[in-house]
Amino acid sequence: MAIHAPTRVLFDTDPGIDDAMALLFLHRHPGLDLQGITTVHGNARTDTTTRNARYLAERFGLEVPVARGAAEPLAMPKSAPPTFVHGDDGLGNAGLSFEPTLPLDPRPAYQLIIDTVRRHPGEVTLIAVGPLTNLALALKEAPAIAGLVKEVVVMGGAFGVDGQGGNITPVAEANIHGDPHAADLVFTADWPVTVVGLDVTHRVLMRNADFARLRELGGEDGDFMWRISRHYVDFYSEREAIDGCYVHDSSAAAYVLDPSLFTIRRGPVRAVRDGLARGQTIQRPDDRDYPPTAWDDYPSQRVCVDVDGPRLMTLFMDTFIAPEKPQGG
Amino acid sequence: MAIHAPTRVLFDTDPGIDDAMALLFLHRHPGLDLQGITTVHGNARTDTTTRNARYLAERFGLEVPVARGAAEPLAMPKSAPPTFVHGDDGLGNAGLSFEPTLPLDPRPAYQLIIDTVRRHPGEVTLIAVGPLTNLALALKEAPAIAGLVKEVVVMGGAFGVDGQGGNITPVAEANIHGDPHAADLVFTADWPVTVVGLDVTHRVLMRNADFARLRELGGEDGDFMWRISRHYVDFYSEREAIDGCYVHDSSAAAYVLDPSLFTIRRGPVRAVRDGLARGQTIQRPDDRDYPPTAWDDYPSQRVCVDVDGPRLMTLFMDTFIAPEKPQGG
Repeated sequence: MAIHAPTRVLFDTDPGIDDAMALLFLHRHPGLDLQGITTVHGNARTDTTTRNARYLAERFGLEVPVARGAAEPLAMPKSAPPTFVHGDDGLGNAGLSFEPTLPLDPRPAYQLIIDTVRRHPGEVTLIAVGPLTNLALALKEAPAIAGLVKEVVVMGGAFGVDGQGGNITPVAEANIHGDPHAADLVFTADWPVTVVGLDVTHRVLMRNADFARLRELGGEDGDFMWRISRHYVDFYSEREAIDGCYVHDSSAAAYVLDPSLFTIRRGPVRAVRDGLARGQTIQRPDDRDYPPTAWDDYPSQRVCVDVDGPRLMTLFMDTFIAPEKPQGG
Repeated sequence: MAIHAPTRVLFDTDPGIDDAMALLFLHRHPGLDLQGITTVHGNARTDTTTRNARYLAERFGLEVPVARGAAEPLAMPKSAPPTFVHGDDGLGNAGLSFEPTLPLDPRPAYQLIIDTVRRHPGEVTLIAVGPLTNLALALKEAPAIAGLVKEVVVMGGAFGVDGQGGNITPVAEANIHGDPHAADLVFTADWPVTVVGLDVTHRVLMRNADFARLRELGGEDGDFMWRISRHYVDFYSEREAIDGCYVHDSSAAAYVLDPSLFTIRRGPVRAVRDGLARGQTIQRPDDRDYPPTAWDDYPSQRVCVDVDGPRLMTLFMDTFIAPEKPQGG
């Protein structure tokens, strides 16, 4: 087995229940080397997501900078956070005692992104699992970082490849809908972007039995994931009639660890900024012909169109519970 | 077997090769009673589609009014017609001698629509297979016709239920893209609309062998369809790598004859009027929950999401070539 150096990642996040789980996953997995955390509006207001990120970093013992990010989208009013999904406190109303003492990095999030990318040219993967405001601000402030980033992996969007659609409108996913102007900038910039959207995350199901196993065998981290997920699982159980929840944000981390879990479609990607389809992500696949379109001048990016959900879940669970060794031999 | 009176239909069309085939299909099938033809911009300019409609009506011996319709979309400039699909003459550059003597109805298309609907309240089905400008103008001129129409069946749109998308942009189908403002009016009016889009028409394949059979056994009509389809089939063979073509417009007529060919999804439908997604059709399915959306105040319509393509093709072919009777018995 080849030994690779772990991939340096910066995590741009709006914790958020599945954000917290993804943070734990990418911290615990030896294949990733977390360089910093930046916060953004989304699952809760930025005051809340920033407090939560500090709380989580302290709780998990992460020795990385946490920088506060944008409190509102680039070019439109912010909308009310989805407390019905993530709870009033953004972490599932699980009765956590939030008194983080971990100091906040003095830089704004976009500056931490810029500095981290510049410190390790060609080595840093940005994993962004909330609205893309911070990444867009970093591009505006320092366009040259596009050439220095290893990869940008976005959890967001919905391309309709599963015949479904969005989760906040019939065509829009919440992260992209939360700042479509930023998303369009990030997708069309000249850096390699991979988009992990609802098309695939809706095929990664974490069952209540998985949470129960984490609680029983996953130590303190497993118990924590079980606790914060109760609200989230209730939401999904009621709305989607599934016994568990979808694994959105951790799927982006899993992509960085093992791209072979996913099937990729290549082509320029744009986000709809205004109107009825606001927040929709649309790719012009490279292998299809159209008359001239508004996608033609932009770089080809990668959209995940299929995933091996069970294998992804095995990767996730094995990070917290060592798999049983085969007997004998 | 129950005997039904044939359904009165008005055909709004931009002939167009598959328009011509659909016109022949609905004329020949005893289940439909053609009341009139209205023309519109789309597959060719309105001068051309009107000439073609007169030519076809005369050639097929249709004793119904033909009225000239809109030459441009409601609220945007018209675009160049797709001669690469339908030929410079709109009927496949098949060397037809166009000298129609059939007089044009003096009314504009929208007035013929209004008059036809009012003459048979509750009985007329509008089959619209081009941009929806005429239907929108009829609604603007006489909103009360919405309550008098039996049904509106539209060939147009793409809802992404097959994971594909549009044919003129990644999300837009050409008829709706040709006048999205009109389409949004038609879809949101309080009359029953059924949309037969690319999601299903891309599953109805007419093979070159079918055309050959029509030519051999379908008499003059069959030979005519073979002749005008050569250009169209070449286009599809090259672009889509299929040995034949999709059956777009005749699928709308087939829906009127036998809705059981199709699977329906219910919910309000809108068309995107501007921006990146212009011309996209989006349904908010009734069985899915979202926060408040821009679809909520509009009537639930019907979108075809699946079709029995082979059975539809049998219905089409049997209209031109009597099926062989089983032996014996």
